[in-house]
Amino acid sequence: MSIRTSAAVRSTITELRETVCALHAELTRHELVIWTAGNVSARVPGEELMVIKPSGVRYHELTPESIVVTDLTGRLVEGDRSPSSDTAAHAYVYRHLPEVGGIVHSHSTYATAWSARREPIPCVLTMVADEFGGDIPVGPFALIGDDSIGRGIVETLRGSRSRAVLMGGHGPFTVGTDAQDAVKAAVMLEDVARTVHIARQLGDPPRLAQAHIDHLFHRYQNVYGQQGDTPS
Amino acid sequence: MSIRTSAAVRSTITELRETVCALHAELTRHELVIWTAGNVSARVPGEELMVIKPSGVRYHELTPESIVVTDLTGRLVEGDRSPSSDTAAHAYVYRHLPEVGGIVHSHSTYATAWSARREPIPCVLTMVADEFGGDIPVGPFALIGDDSIGRGIVETLRGSRSRAVLMGGHGPFTVGTDAQDAVKAAVMLEDVARTVHIARQLGDPPRLAQAHIDHLFHRYQNVYGQQGDTPS
Amino acid sequence: MSIRTSAAVRSTITELRETVCALHAELTRHELVIWTAGNVSARVPGEELMVIKPSGVRYHELTPESIVVTDLTGRLVEGDRSPSSDTAAHAYVYRHLPEVGGIVHSHSTYATAWSARREPIPCVLTMVADEFGGDIPVGPFALIGDDSIGRGIVETLRGSRSRAVLMGGHGPFTVGTDAQDAVKAAVMLEDVARTVHIARQLGDPPRLAQAHIDHLFHRYQNVYGQQGDTPS
Amino acid sequence: MSIRTSAAVRSTITELRETVCALHAELTRHELVIWTAGNVSARVPGEELMVIKPSGVRYHELTPESIVVTDLTGRLVEGDRSPSSDTAAHAYVYRHLPEVGGIVHSHSTYATAWSARREPIPCVLTMVADEFGGDIPVGPFALIGDDSIGRGIVETLRGSRSRAVLMGGHGPFTVGTDAQDAVKAAVMLEDVARTVHIARQLGDPPRLAQAHIDHLFHRYQNVYGQQGDTPS
Repeated sequence: MSIRTSAAVRSTITELRETVCALHAELTRHELVIWTAGNVSARVPGEELMVIKPSGVRYHELTPESIVVTDLTGRLVEGDRSPSSDTAAHAYVYRHLPEVGGIVHSHSTYATAWSARREPIPCVLTMVADEFGGDIPVGPFALIGDDSIGRGIVETLRGSRSRAVLMGGHGPFTVGTDAQDAVKAAVMLEDVARTVHIARQLGDPPRLAQAHIDHLFHRYQNVYGQQGDTPS
Repeated sequence: MSIRTSAAVRSTITELRETVCALHAELTRHELVIWTAGNVSARVPGEELMVIKPSGVRYHELTPESIVVTDLTGRLVEGDRSPSSDTAAHAYVYRHLPEVGGIVHSHSTYATAWSARREPIPCVLTMVADEFGGDIPVGPFALIGDDSIGRGIVETLRGSRSRAVLMGGHGPFTVGTDAQDAVKAAVMLEDVARTVHIARQLGDPPRLAQAHIDHLFHRYQNVYGQQGDTPS
Repeated sequence: MSIRTSAAVRSTITELRETVCALHAELTRHELVIWTAGNVSARVPGEELMVIKPSGVRYHELTPESIVVTDLTGRLVEGDRSPSSDTAAHAYVYRHLPEVGGIVHSHSTYATAWSARREPIPCVLTMVADEFGGDIPVGPFALIGDDSIGRGIVETLRGSRSRAVLMGGHGPFTVGTDAQDAVKAAVMLEDVARTVHIARQLGDPPRLAQAHIDHLFHRYQNVYGQQGDTPS
Repeated sequence: MSIRTSAAVRSTITELRETVCALHAELTRHELVIWTAGNVSARVPGEELMVIKPSGVRYHELTPESIVVTDLTGRLVEGDRSPSSDTAAHAYVYRHLPEVGGIVHSHSTYATAWSARREPIPCVLTMVADEFGGDIPVGPFALIGDDSIGRGIVETLRGSRSRAVLMGGHGPFTVGTDAQDAVKAAVMLEDVARTVHIARQLGDPPRLAQAHIDHLFHRYQNVYGQQGDTPS
């Protein structure tokens, strides 16, 4: 199957397939996924299209050519394989959150553990404030198969500072301005999920003051990094 | 020692030795085993034979040639070394569960911890429902040396949706349609054993509703993936 | 931007850039940092200068040339990129603790967990006594943006045997005679933070007797190793 | 410095230096040590000599030539560097336990955590019974600098089935018939220390029956493996 479109869009799709393929390697490098259980997608800017991992393919077998293209209802537009079984959720988010350019779903261990307890990650560290702007919220339990998961993500993230949502009994989704930004959010999410979990094992770390959280979040979004890069 | 058989069976055995050798590398890559303490076997389809790891050989020294062939009582049929000390258990399972084509035994950390407590892993996450269809069951404590371990595995898994059993005070066994499928089950088992353990450290995550578990398990078995592949 | 200085200082700066670049790879190798969230600096001996990681650059993209030079108020003196957002804290420490030649900041998991609880790491193991001379102290919560963090580090470490401070709600800083020594302190800190955490999970390990701590610390500083190297 | 001895002993020493150098890489590969904080030694069979890691050398810098030779009082006999600061303890063990041919000291995380609490690792898993023959014992707290540590090890292990001792407030030592066997014991010790710790986090796993422990230990020592190799 292939799509009729301009040379510029074709070129963008080719590039996004390469990027999304490479970003799956980041998921494994950061040990956020095992076997086939996670996926990255990217919106094709200006088009009603996205690129996403094919279903049931292991990470070391992914190639740019195996990444599929779907429309924003999740219908396969280009590619030899079925799109990821989470495609409907990705597509729903792109339809309803126009500022989102990339999405990651994983079952990373610590974030998924908070999801299992359906408990938000409290903002007890500067890096939680920097990256997520406050507590990291929990979304509803939702069954796969229709728009329930997508709707749960959108309802939780719309109007939130957080780029991550912990879907109850399931696992995390993160969003970003593009796919790389969503992957960074997934990596940072697992890191803070693990660190706050460990802090909580031996006591009750105090939440940061709201004024401090606000200060840190705004500074991080606006001041640091190189021309918009993430800071260190 | 070598066996007299048709060229087709010879060719199958050669292939299975390569597969089973390569799958041991998956066990180490996923950190399910250390030193020599785990093993993979595969049934030779249509024959009363299986291939299995030799005893006391470290993983980086395994070669396809070192993988041994036994009959389904565990008697060495081909190979220069003794079969794994767990051969009797594997053989018993192949004799009594004809649908099983591959078996993995490991002492992977978190699954073994549940085994030590003799506590089933509760189905509190969609990925437990997807992969195991409910709680992951505990088998009896059984001494090595006769059919006790094999019998414990068969009694626990027969009629269960689960492809994994936590043998009390010992560690996990997983089964699959073939050896690769059993390795996938071993990897997923350790992943959910770890995630549910961590979830439980800070509270009591709710079990999924039985109707949701049934829905997820059936969908996962029947709908996803590429021509029967595992989904993502 | 570049600085006018002697050939000898130029040569020292070139060497320190290489060292500091290479030491960031130690941080990732020991899994103390992810993405861009940690940094190493080195004082330029005899000068009012330091070299430090640029802001927002990922570790695998760092080159010796990308490491920037600042003065000891944190003002960029040489380099194409902004210095790390933690530069003010590093500079403050160099201004106020003349014996410090290298500084590391990370958000390593276990040390940060103790920081979140604002709880010192108790000296319950010989290796804590060897390396840190007693309990590892907590510093105040301080906002980024002025001298608060640097002041908190200096007030905590001045007069302490410890080369590490756990900044409340934030994470650890370690110092050393040079950058390599500060990296060693960061690695050992995370190791003892993890080990003592795990010891504490199942009980309350006894603190070593003060006389034993003193004995171990003095012996370690004075007796072991090869001409001042760290012992084994 | 060099020793006068027969060509056969020279050849044995050369071989042991290579073996002991290579075995330190196993310690890092299994994440039992960081920086310089662990060491392996081997007795030179039939001589009053041992080979051991030099002090303060990092693992990736070790070469067979840098491994030093000492007599069994710990006095340097051959080599350019000081022997490990733990040499006195190794030497004491070789003097008093003639069946020991190799020794490993590490600060591996979970074994050291049990050491900090001064709590034996209970025999709740078949692999503890197989490898250690029962609970893994705790030795006394002892200061470095004289024979105290060596004496503590010998008093704890003499007459015990266990090849591992958890020195109070310090960390583990393991012994074996040769250096490789002691390294295997160190690897298995950390594995069971971690698994039993994790089992204990969520409950109290039952100790195996003494008759079962005896059965497993004797079978493991006598029946399995390839001509005395360790089984799988």
